[in-house]
Amino acid sequence: MEKVQERLYVEQVKEMDVEEVLVKGWVHKIIDFGKFGFIHLRDKTGILQLVVDKEVLKGLRLEMSIEVIGTKVVNEKAPGGVEIQVKGLEVIGNTYYEMLPIPVNEYKKKAHLETQLDYRYISLRNPKTRAAFKVQQEIVTAFREYLLANNFSEIHTPKILGASTEGGSEVFTINYFEKRAFLAQSPQFFKQMMVGAGFEKVFEIAPAYRAELHNTYRHLNEYISLDLEMGFIKDENDIMDLEEGFIRHLFQHLRKTCQKELAMYDVSLPEKVEIPRIPLAEAHRILLEEYGKRSPVGNIDAEGEELFSKYIKEKYDSDFVFLTAYPIKKRPMYAMPDEDGMTKSFDLIYKGLEITTGGQRIHDYEMLKENIKKFGFNPEDYGFYLESFRYGMPPHGGLAIGLERITMKILNLSNIREATLLPRDMKRLEP
Amino acid sequence: MEKVQERLYVEQVKEMDVEEVLVKGWVHKIIDFGKFGFIHLRDKTGILQLVVDKEVLKGLRLEMSIEVIGTKVVNEKAPGGVEIQVKGLEVIGNTYYEMLPIPVNEYKKKAHLETQLDYRYISLRNPKTRAAFKVQQEIVTAFREYLLANNFSEIHTPKILGASTEGGSEVFTINYFEKRAFLAQSPQFFKQMMVGAGFEKVFEIAPAYRAELHNTYRHLNEYISLDLEMGFIKDENDIMDLEEGFIRHLFQHLRKTCQKELAMYDVSLPEKVEIPRIPLAEAHRILLEEYGKRSPVGNIDAEGEELFSKYIKEKYDSDFVFLTAYPIKKRPMYAMPDEDGMTKSFDLIYKGLEITTGGQRIHDYEMLKENIKKFGFNPEDYGFYLESFRYGMPPHGGLAIGLERITMKILNLSNIREATLLPRDMKRLEP
Repeated sequence: MEKVQERLYVEQVKEMDVEEVLVKGWVHKIIDFGKFGFIHLRDKTGILQLVVDKEVLKGLRLEMSIEVIGTKVVNEKAPGGVEIQVKGLEVIGNTYYEMLPIPVNEYKKKAHLETQLDYRYISLRNPKTRAAFKVQQEIVTAFREYLLANNFSEIHTPKILGASTEGGSEVFTINYFEKRAFLAQSPQFFKQMMVGAGFEKVFEIAPAYRAELHNTYRHLNEYISLDLEMGFIKDENDIMDLEEGFIRHLFQHLRKTCQKELAMYDVSLPEKVEIPRIPLAEAHRILLEEYGKRSPVGNIDAEGEELFSKYIKEKYDSDFVFLTAYPIKKRPMYAMPDEDGMTKSFDLIYKGLEITTGGQRIHDYEMLKENIKKFGFNPEDYGFYLESFRYGMPPHGGLAIGLERITMKILNLSNIREATLLPRDMKRLEP
Repeated sequence: MEKVQERLYVEQVKEMDVEEVLVKGWVHKIIDFGKFGFIHLRDKTGILQLVVDKEVLKGLRLEMSIEVIGTKVVNEKAPGGVEIQVKGLEVIGNTYYEMLPIPVNEYKKKAHLETQLDYRYISLRNPKTRAAFKVQQEIVTAFREYLLANNFSEIHTPKILGASTEGGSEVFTINYFEKRAFLAQSPQFFKQMMVGAGFEKVFEIAPAYRAELHNTYRHLNEYISLDLEMGFIKDENDIMDLEEGFIRHLFQHLRKTCQKELAMYDVSLPEKVEIPRIPLAEAHRILLEEYGKRSPVGNIDAEGEELFSKYIKEKYDSDFVFLTAYPIKKRPMYAMPDEDGMTKSFDLIYKGLEITTGGQRIHDYEMLKENIKKFGFNPEDYGFYLESFRYGMPPHGGLAIGLERITMKILNLSNIREATLLPRDMKRLEP
């Protein structure tokens, strides 16, 4: 192969004014016309038509990795209006299969989700399947950018705990040097502690673990939690204001960075984001009056979330709604009490799915200790967590957003596993 | 309290042209002159002197959270040349202690590291202690920025595995719905898989777990791994080039964003970063000739790393050195073989400590299968990992940087726990 310049991505080849190019990628499609042929080369950024002599096609198989030099030619009939007259093609990654377990280049035939997950290293080669993760990456980027711009610090807290954080049986146990330890269900205690430790405003993007016995379209046993906690707040409205600001920033950011990917999923994001804040009791009343739907005490079930989102969409033209004022008994012991047995807490429902739980937390040591007792727990079991409140903890609150859930809802995916590279659920530990 | 504007940070109060201010933070110091007094207020960004009447000091205790309004006055004798004449002060976070377990405002008396870790929510209030984590945050930011700018995708892979990745006994086991699962020692298999799945270049910033029976100044059992993997490379030099470029970008970024923090630790980062690449055998020869130091076969021990770094510093004026050409027997089965029983792999040593292991990997299915056998393992045990190589895996390689290790070395800390918010080691599971 003759000496060539740096490798260009397919997108660059299409956009730039170049003649000689070096491209790399996978054999996406082979079209054999006898005397010559087309190869569609696929890389991270797109698909490019290569024009080759017939002998180049000999032994060439779909999904081989290749390296190609050639000349860029404008051809309106080629995908993207451009093709490459190939001067040299080298196979740099061989294949060893009888049949592809999932076709990569047939967009219309979609393999069953379980098959896609079994062969993740093939199913993700489909540009549309992979595009969901470009959107997910930009959600993470937008979250981080927004919070760094608002004086938050990024933290990393351990996922191995000496005691289970929020109680309950839904926790995985680890064998830790002959001791029993637990996988963190959330960084809740640590993020509060770091607010008090002087960081004031913190966020963390990290895995969280729930040993829930659910195997549904919206549950994962390991997921990425976008957590934040913020000190010196007035009340839970500061936290909702922050999240509303984030959603606005997020949609702007996605419109800018994921135009192509959003189009693949036929998604257009609203320009205007104004999120109604409605007390849970009011939502219950509306559900009963409008849909004859009864709700569980102090909560809202999956059907209720969907119906209520429908109502909000019609009445407020919003995909989002904050449900506020959850009762004390339905929230953790650290939730800040409000009037009438309620808490200063909220959920954010997006297109019928809860994607956030948040609220103001108790910051006074004595109040927290009393509340732990009221919940029937022993303050001594809360060792370092409770102790950390002795030293001037400021008023604070926070929230957590499920990354896979918000990705799923933005792209209107029907199963959370489509928004997860390698999902972990009750049945799936591989790949 | 009268109506005031938005809260300003201490740094903003000092920099901006303002008269009336609202500040929030902790009581860092109280100086009582009888008729009046000073309070040093500490927030996330700095320390500010408040001038108050004597009655304000009544009942005020160190480390209470307070909210203050007042007038900015220039006073050359005050820290930072500015003080606030206080009009109103409110305690918003109470204290409940007899004595602070660690003094926050005495810079010279430093508590024992174990005590600092026991009371992390107090020890981090010391600005210098907390500054290490600002530097750590900016290392993470620089890593991400650099890779995103180089067309990498950020990925999230599961930390719960159905089989232990790289073998060995140094793995934590989890009880996963009555099955046995493992905590990931690294995202090695997954990041390679994602290169092949079409992302081409990926990185991940996530916890990694090593059940090592070491309790030393440089080991953690849970740490943050900065991982990357890159497809379509020529050889391991592409990976070293990338890391060298990252280190250059990192130092520029830290000089820009962490001037104050680096000064606290008396650190100045070199303008020039050119990293020698020296084969392990050559390093062995130098260690023997220069220091009479014998090395273990195919490796270098902690003492050797330190001596060799000293040699490199003197000879090349570099804090870094790449050690290359490790023998096959000392590297994992996926390391790409080179001539003479060596591999295309490397370590990066920084100021006497290994902070990176990396290299080119085997990408050919048959070669990988054969190598697994040569290592005495059964290819069938590598199920989905080996399978993923059947479909045109391109030449690729990658590396992992230990976040706490690089933080420790940049700041010349003597123990890795000082670069960890909440360390996990054989003895420590709390806080």
